[in-house]
Amino acid sequence: MSKIKNIGILTSGGDSPGMNAAIRAVVRASLYHNLKITGVLRGYEGLIQADFIPMDGKSVANIIQRGGTILKTARCDAFKTKEGRVLAHKNLVDSEIDALVVIGGDGTFTGADIFSKEFDFPIIGLPGTIDNDLVGTDFTIGYDTAINTVVNAVDKIRDTAESHDRLFIVEVMGRDSGLIALRSGIGVGAEAILIPEAKVGVPELMHRIETGRKDKASKIIIVAEGDEAGGAYVIGETLKEKFPKYDIRVSVLGHIQRGGSPSCMDRVLASRLGVAALEGLLEGKTDVMAGLVNKEIVFTPFSQTIKHIDAEKITPSWLKLVEILSM
Amino acid sequence: MSKIKNIGILTSGGDSPGMNAAIRAVVRASLYHNLKITGVLRGYEGLIQADFIPMDGKSVANIIQRGGTILKTARCDAFKTKEGRVLAHKNLVDSEIDALVVIGGDGTFTGADIFSKEFDFPIIGLPGTIDNDLVGTDFTIGYDTAINTVVNAVDKIRDTAESHDRLFIVEVMGRDSGLIALRSGIGVGAEAILIPEAKVGVPELMHRIETGRKDKASKIIIVAEGDEAGGAYVIGETLKEKFPKYDIRVSVLGHIQRGGSPSCMDRVLASRLGVAALEGLLEGKTDVMAGLVNKEIVFTPFSQTIKHIDAEKITPSWLKLVEILSM
Amino acid sequence: MSKIKNIGILTSGGDSPGMNAAIRAVVRASLYHNLKITGVLRGYEGLIQADFIPMDGKSVANIIQRGGTILKTARCDAFKTKEGRVLAHKNLVDSEIDALVVIGGDGTFTGADIFSKEFDFPIIGLPGTIDNDLVGTDFTIGYDTAINTVVNAVDKIRDTAESHDRLFIVEVMGRDSGLIALRSGIGVGAEAILIPEAKVGVPELMHRIETGRKDKASKIIIVAEGDEAGGAYVIGETLKEKFPKYDIRVSVLGHIQRGGSPSCMDRVLASRLGVAALEGLLEGKTDVMAGLVNKEIVFTPFSQTIKHIDAEKITPSWLKLVEILSM
Amino acid sequence: MSKIKNIGILTSGGDSPGMNAAIRAVVRASLYHNLKITGVLRGYEGLIQADFIPMDGKSVANIIQRGGTILKTARCDAFKTKEGRVLAHKNLVDSEIDALVVIGGDGTFTGADIFSKEFDFPIIGLPGTIDNDLVGTDFTIGYDTAINTVVNAVDKIRDTAESHDRLFIVEVMGRDSGLIALRSGIGVGAEAILIPEAKVGVPELMHRIETGRKDKASKIIIVAEGDEAGGAYVIGETLKEKFPKYDIRVSVLGHIQRGGSPSCMDRVLASRLGVAALEGLLEGKTDVMAGLVNKEIVFTPFSQTIKHIDAEKITPSWLKLVEILSM
Repeated sequence: MSKIKNIGILTSGGDSPGMNAAIRAVVRASLYHNLKITGVLRGYEGLIQADFIPMDGKSVANIIQRGGTILKTARCDAFKTKEGRVLAHKNLVDSEIDALVVIGGDGTFTGADIFSKEFDFPIIGLPGTIDNDLVGTDFTIGYDTAINTVVNAVDKIRDTAESHDRLFIVEVMGRDSGLIALRSGIGVGAEAILIPEAKVGVPELMHRIETGRKDKASKIIIVAEGDEAGGAYVIGETLKEKFPKYDIRVSVLGHIQRGGSPSCMDRVLASRLGVAALEGLLEGKTDVMAGLVNKEIVFTPFSQTIKHIDAEKITPSWLKLVEILSM
Repeated sequence: MSKIKNIGILTSGGDSPGMNAAIRAVVRASLYHNLKITGVLRGYEGLIQADFIPMDGKSVANIIQRGGTILKTARCDAFKTKEGRVLAHKNLVDSEIDALVVIGGDGTFTGADIFSKEFDFPIIGLPGTIDNDLVGTDFTIGYDTAINTVVNAVDKIRDTAESHDRLFIVEVMGRDSGLIALRSGIGVGAEAILIPEAKVGVPELMHRIETGRKDKASKIIIVAEGDEAGGAYVIGETLKEKFPKYDIRVSVLGHIQRGGSPSCMDRVLASRLGVAALEGLLEGKTDVMAGLVNKEIVFTPFSQTIKHIDAEKITPSWLKLVEILSM
Repeated sequence: MSKIKNIGILTSGGDSPGMNAAIRAVVRASLYHNLKITGVLRGYEGLIQADFIPMDGKSVANIIQRGGTILKTARCDAFKTKEGRVLAHKNLVDSEIDALVVIGGDGTFTGADIFSKEFDFPIIGLPGTIDNDLVGTDFTIGYDTAINTVVNAVDKIRDTAESHDRLFIVEVMGRDSGLIALRSGIGVGAEAILIPEAKVGVPELMHRIETGRKDKASKIIIVAEGDEAGGAYVIGETLKEKFPKYDIRVSVLGHIQRGGSPSCMDRVLASRLGVAALEGLLEGKTDVMAGLVNKEIVFTPFSQTIKHIDAEKITPSWLKLVEILSM
Repeated sequence: MSKIKNIGILTSGGDSPGMNAAIRAVVRASLYHNLKITGVLRGYEGLIQADFIPMDGKSVANIIQRGGTILKTARCDAFKTKEGRVLAHKNLVDSEIDALVVIGGDGTFTGADIFSKEFDFPIIGLPGTIDNDLVGTDFTIGYDTAINTVVNAVDKIRDTAESHDRLFIVEVMGRDSGLIALRSGIGVGAEAILIPEAKVGVPELMHRIETGRKDKASKIIIVAEGDEAGGAYVIGETLKEKFPKYDIRVSVLGHIQRGGSPSCMDRVLASRLGVAALEGLLEGKTDVMAGLVNKEIVFTPFSQTIKHIDAEKITPSWLKLVEILSM
């Protein structure tokens, strides 16, 4: 039988919609299994500062629908040092916290991997990031909300594009991954999608614009933040030079993509994974992330989750799909 | 090589968000493969009336974001008769339409199954229904949008429930299936979810209310339309008698669940399946529905898709999850 | 100079979106003027139970965007009795609360009018109701959000109506007033709007349907809850008998109309009126409601605000407008 | 009696949500009065190109909820020349169009003012711009939708700001006017609002940040595009130097502010003004804009509407309000 009696929970890295739903699920599952549950504020910083709050069912009432994280999040350089982690461990021991659930992305899991091994401390991670760039889960918590936010924003921009016969270049988030751009680009019916994973450069983009349907006066091009072509403004300038007749505009969607009330899918995913993480700890699992692959809960070692890009997620068939749909 | 040169497309049964995105994908994929594409208006009724319109890229411009179906939909009793189907077939032959893509639910596929076999006519179906009650696809086109609509509506209702310390019974769609109720119920953080697949009766519901956390003054109960307990109003009356102190209200969400701009996931799903259906026809597939299972395109014979409930979709682990989360 | 040092604030009656924004404004204005501010929970019930909480700037952080009311609201029969009010007054005196801001509708103001006169106690009201049925303000707090909620819901229903060529009868809130139906009906492009103030009966409705444009296959009819024709279901039955060929459906929007994040206009209105109420108290005003008429703050005696219907708000020119727009 | 028999309608300048609702109202009112109605495509460009389409009730079916303009809009330098206008007038005469309704902002009305006087041609304008910067109407068509779009976007950004204890500088539209910034800033509960009309410079902003509540970790500052302080990025850089401890981020909301489904208020305003414009023409009015002031329809000469800023719209009491609410 598990000796775990008190579980700490924290959110770390960039916030994502659904983190609160995940916190709620971990808390409720702890209560269900008669465990104590302790909130750690501001991620690893809170471990080092011993910024702990006891939680109960009421702590997480009426938060499932809220964006952001009630436990707050922050960067923490101190946790990257041995001294910082030793202090964090001492604080956990002093407060009789036996295990941790950490919600975040690759930075979070890198830290958790080291800490878990260093002190043989049980930790399970939940994939909380809008980028969907983790191995070991089909979707991360927050991704579905983010792509809906993009789609709703670009639907508005298209109203203007259609009214003015304009070409819009819209930059979406994703420094290392084109996954937000890919699905949201298909969702808005983009003429072209520029992502790091597919080497569609500006020349090919120009070719596509020149050879595309002539009766299509307005166009939307989606660019991932991290695309090598240099971001929406650079692409915009290049296109303006090449196509002086086009009325070309640039829009960088920015931080709205991280917030907002989570979609139903993100709430459900967060709820399932939150319960699974807690039960995984009780079953002795550690140093792993709980994810959902092909509708099943799977646990993947932290070290494998953080390879950034799951090549399987952007296959050639996706790129073909984009081409067909832009006919 | 395929001899198909002209493809007919229709939507049938209740409309669902994403049908237009699916139509667009089929049309664009047809153009990509240099095929003619013909719209059939008002489902099978349009086959019988020979209500056909030629389509091109422009026909489907700026529709990916719209709810409903530009091809309209209707019930058609005549198609259930041999005479009706013979006439439909004659009209297709007269207009040199070689194959059909039909978008709809179990009623649509029942008709397509008969017609396809009767006249050896190539047909591929796309799962267009908010109910998600088809075998052969993890999600149907429209389901994701519908559960988001429910979640947004109940988030509003919860504002009132919290302000007044009320218990709300909210009825959602799903005559034969509790799938909308299940996910949306988890998404709104419902205290209980009553669905046909789980025999949680009113007595157990009462027990749960009596034994639940006392500091939880407001409560949301989600009921599927088809639950045996008799619908939200009947349950409301029973609870009022049993718990006279509670301020109990009933809300039937109704037809808003069928409409609205599709979510990003529904647009992407519709786009992928639309292209897959067209390419399936070219590869000689027929009498099957194109679906997405574990991230892969699969084709399932119509006769297997319409068993209504995929028992796999509502497993005991889902019901356990609901119980844990309502702590 | 005013002797007011501690102001109580409460919300009463049905909740409406923007109540929290109003609470925030009253609290912040109190702090600006160096006054104490005390929250009274659950409306007049909290006065009688002495359910008071001290408030500061942090109490109202991050609530401007939330529906419902953080102070909760309830019906209170005891406040209608002399004994109840005497107790309420004693509690206020004991807690050294010198004045009240009450947020609500006609029931709230009826009670405030009596109490204010009975004990010579300074009270200013804020119009918090979705119904817009108070004299002394162009708009009540919550009305703008409610009509946007209706419009968004009916936009979804229209997707289905258009796809199926259906006639939808949609019932909206407003027991004594057709103001929600009027503006939302124009906003959705309704074929007809049935409200208590205009005696458009079912016969005239039928006439309009029969003589309307024949190429308009789908129709939306908006009915106010309190219309004499008997509610959406009764009208639906009558129309089905008269027009058996029409595919007629009924939808009662229900409680979603009370909740949700307030619109910008409601937040701004609540903010302006909240500050005005506090400053009105300091200037010695009492027994009045703060409202906005023709862009100016005005104070209207409670007894005049509660005549229910401001005939000016539904003029013949509005009804003419509806007729013209349904061409 | 009016000799007007055929009315032309066009949209010009930047598009705004509600333009389609205005077009619909003008068309329906024309039909009601048995007049012909002709759509002019792409604003004044369409006058010069004789790009006219006959319209009827069906032309405007199902558009009341759509952003953008079905008549399209464009800049037109040729209309600024005498030759261009002579050609435009000839085209109108040739097509027997007797009068015009033009929907747009100050540029549109400047052209209409010249044309109307030059050829004694009846023109009435409708205020279609998100900026609300016209004299002669309390609100322009599109303003209410735009401020709701801003508020919804900033609500999402605040989720992140709260989670990270960040200070966000958000730039909203309004090159010559701070009206979008003013109301949306109040609506989001901004700590400070920087607009051209109020000379709150960066030093005062810094002072406010330094002296503000210390327990308020996250802050939102709204900046109008046209503020003299130099735009959000410049302000961001200055603040970062001054407050290195703050985690400061910048977001420029951009083109999403122009699009989207119009709010109920914008649809109703557009509907009322559209009918009023048509009836104004029939009564012999010309060279005026139809607006709504204090709930009444008023007609204001074009030359008076385009003074850009109505000083009455941003009074000192508004600025005081912002200060109080940021306590």
